[in-house]
Amino acid sequence: MSEIEHHSALLTDLYELTMAAAYFENKLLANATFELFVRSLPAERGFLLAAGLEQALDYLENLRFEDDDIAYLRQQTAFQNISSEFFDYLRNFRFTGEVWAMPEGTPVFGEEPFLRVTAPIMEAQIVETFLLSMLTFQTMIASKAARVVKAAQGRRIIEFGSRRAHGPDAGVLAARAAYIAGCAGTSNVEAGRRYGIPIFGTLAHSFIMAYVDETEAFRKFHQLFPRGVLLVDTYDTLAAVDRIIKNGLHPSGIRLDSGDLLELSRQARKRLDEAGLTETKIFASGDLDEYVIRDLLARGAQIDAFGVGTALATSKDAPALGGVYKLVDLELDGHISYRAKFSEEKLTYPGRKQVFRSHDSSGAFRGDTVACETEGFPGDEPLLSCVMQNGKRVCPIPDLPSIQQYARQQLERIPEGCFLGRERYNVNFSQRLQDLLMVVRGRIKHQSEGKPGSQGVA
Amino acid sequence: MSEIEHHSALLTDLYELTMAAAYFENKLLANATFELFVRSLPAERGFLLAAGLEQALDYLENLRFEDDDIAYLRQQTAFQNISSEFFDYLRNFRFTGEVWAMPEGTPVFGEEPFLRVTAPIMEAQIVETFLLSMLTFQTMIASKAARVVKAAQGRRIIEFGSRRAHGPDAGVLAARAAYIAGCAGTSNVEAGRRYGIPIFGTLAHSFIMAYVDETEAFRKFHQLFPRGVLLVDTYDTLAAVDRIIKNGLHPSGIRLDSGDLLELSRQARKRLDEAGLTETKIFASGDLDEYVIRDLLARGAQIDAFGVGTALATSKDAPALGGVYKLVDLELDGHISYRAKFSEEKLTYPGRKQVFRSHDSSGAFRGDTVACETEGFPGDEPLLSCVMQNGKRVCPIPDLPSIQQYARQQLERIPEGCFLGRERYNVNFSQRLQDLLMVVRGRIKHQSEGKPGSQGVA
Repeated sequence: MSEIEHHSALLTDLYELTMAAAYFENKLLANATFELFVRSLPAERGFLLAAGLEQALDYLENLRFEDDDIAYLRQQTAFQNISSEFFDYLRNFRFTGEVWAMPEGTPVFGEEPFLRVTAPIMEAQIVETFLLSMLTFQTMIASKAARVVKAAQGRRIIEFGSRRAHGPDAGVLAARAAYIAGCAGTSNVEAGRRYGIPIFGTLAHSFIMAYVDETEAFRKFHQLFPRGVLLVDTYDTLAAVDRIIKNGLHPSGIRLDSGDLLELSRQARKRLDEAGLTETKIFASGDLDEYVIRDLLARGAQIDAFGVGTALATSKDAPALGGVYKLVDLELDGHISYRAKFSEEKLTYPGRKQVFRSHDSSGAFRGDTVACETEGFPGDEPLLSCVMQNGKRVCPIPDLPSIQQYARQQLERIPEGCFLGRERYNVNFSQRLQDLLMVVRGRIKHQSEGKPGSQGVA
Repeated sequence: MSEIEHHSALLTDLYELTMAAAYFENKLLANATFELFVRSLPAERGFLLAAGLEQALDYLENLRFEDDDIAYLRQQTAFQNISSEFFDYLRNFRFTGEVWAMPEGTPVFGEEPFLRVTAPIMEAQIVETFLLSMLTFQTMIASKAARVVKAAQGRRIIEFGSRRAHGPDAGVLAARAAYIAGCAGTSNVEAGRRYGIPIFGTLAHSFIMAYVDETEAFRKFHQLFPRGVLLVDTYDTLAAVDRIIKNGLHPSGIRLDSGDLLELSRQARKRLDEAGLTETKIFASGDLDEYVIRDLLARGAQIDAFGVGTALATSKDAPALGGVYKLVDLELDGHISYRAKFSEEKLTYPGRKQVFRSHDSSGAFRGDTVACETEGFPGDEPLLSCVMQNGKRVCPIPDLPSIQQYARQQLERIPEGCFLGRERYNVNFSQRLQDLLMVVRGRIKHQSEGKPGSQGVA
């Protein structure tokens, strides 16, 4: 069902291309390794749920510079000292690197790389912006959606937020990420077509208002869509419920979209049950989020399913993750030269890493260790695996329902307090990684203070 | 420079299509008028800046259902009772309506429609989701950007947020909206190509780290990009500034991306000036927003330009606007039948409206009146004008620099306290509009309580 979207190669920051040009002109063609991670979780999040890998790999496999991309770049004064060989390089550009990643649907925490790219440094640099945008956005939405789904305690959540998403395309991606995290479906038709996600939706207030007479609107709609859900809050919610009953309609559900959802759901349930409409479900929407849903259910709301829009499709309480993509090593003259950054507040650890997850006997997650790739922690689960070599996928991407199922199993193993509580999951750096950081820091400090070294002396 | 993007007709909520099918099957083909507005401003915003109209009109002019769109819809069980004539209708679908709108770059406030669509109700319904998403997202970003630009007091703001935007396409739209609101440009190359926005960017930490020896990295980059800005915070900011000076480099600027920007900018300025590099500008970035910029400048930071990313490209402190698109009338049997909604918290006013803006003698905005379209307020400026008839633009869309210039002039006329202060701009409903609401409320209440009326009796 999945469909590859064509993405312009210019969906990147200009500096990725100026750096690529400088690497090219200076013949720095070495393989570089970059790791993508979120430095620290927003205060409102106890975990993240990795998502977006499929679109990231599609992008890497299909990235091409078209002639008009190159013509545009050549016009830019920034590139006036750049040789035409660089533009020839872009014309023949293919991503040829290796990618390691956590599967979509894996819980991930701060400082844990969930994607790692090893490729000629120009290639690895050019793809930075797109990878960050695609992976951190879907991960952010999946993380929010997992919380909403949890709060609903098994009741269905439908993602409804396209109209409030950050543009039409963000709505489609949000629907995908929300589905991975356990939503039952989306209102977004394009997401249904593109990704095979179940689509939901029946009618809005405008349909009721078009008829003025609410009963007539209900009748006309119900006749065509007998499985449809009737929206009851356009004028007076309980009067609308009575109208449905009095007119002998048997909708599969009614939707409450405003007012006191607790009280209205109870009253509506009572009236429906008394009229024998026990099979008619009550669906609620209207500025919901995980906290509102939790509280409604705790107070005994008679709601069977929820439509969640803005809060979900924008991750409204934490609408950006501090995703970064950091150089950790270069392959020079057949050996690995480590790289790290020591600016205040923004330290990065050198070298390729693996994330090891420790489980208790029941399978519950106990804590993670971010370690050098070559380390081993018997019994712990290494989370990153190779998904692309020489620019081609090396394992099939699971279909979306399988990813959803995997995510569900994973989410069951996260400490309860990481959901709506404030529990902080335990993530450590291995001793060997910390030692390596010290060594690299000492060496870079020494070299930076000394005489100009040759390229890549490290 | 502008380029039409192809947008799938399925970028909509399913209920728009089920409602369209129900209108079709019930032969409700009347013209309907919908108005798009934000109910109330977020607490963090004193005004909005309308943006996104060009993309909205492109969408309306070019909206088509492709064969595979229709094939997908026909498969859905929701449509099982829908006749093939409806799908034939979709196959020949064109948007044929009329659109009134505020020009991009116009300040807009809560309850003020900034787009109004009059079209056969099916057409007007189907386009709802896309219009809301496109217009409210760009408006939200432009509104944030206007605040950031204001805080910089004439210094340049570059939009840097693509990597944190809600997917790759959101980054491009955010760059456009930010430019309208007065940003000098963007790092997003696709936004440069697609919309002609100036693009900026030089190098990241990875370039410095690739060379280990910072001086060598600076030299190599500077040689190729003599107008480039050197990034100085990879290891030790002031040591890097000293290295630039000692090695006789004359970059057009340096960029600070972490640490105490106030203190570092002062020290760096002092060292650069003492070395005669008085022309070298200081550029700052790293989790900036309008408040940080205001405070830095108030405390005497020596910063000439700012790169603003996450806060701007996600409107982080107010990442969603409550945009709605409401039915206000239907044309039935040659007369206008008003529509309104009375559910709790979500009242809407009936009938087509105009927004009238009052100015003082200096041109400053004093307050607005949302009124019936046919009213007149001599001396006040009507903000909505006709931009599309019969599905075709009726006025040329101004180019982006002209929109930016118009926005700048408009923003100068907003009360100062509406920017970073908490001043609330005065918006009233006209007496005639309030009277109309009462009449329509009484009539709809009466009819809803009465016997089933015929379609559209109003």
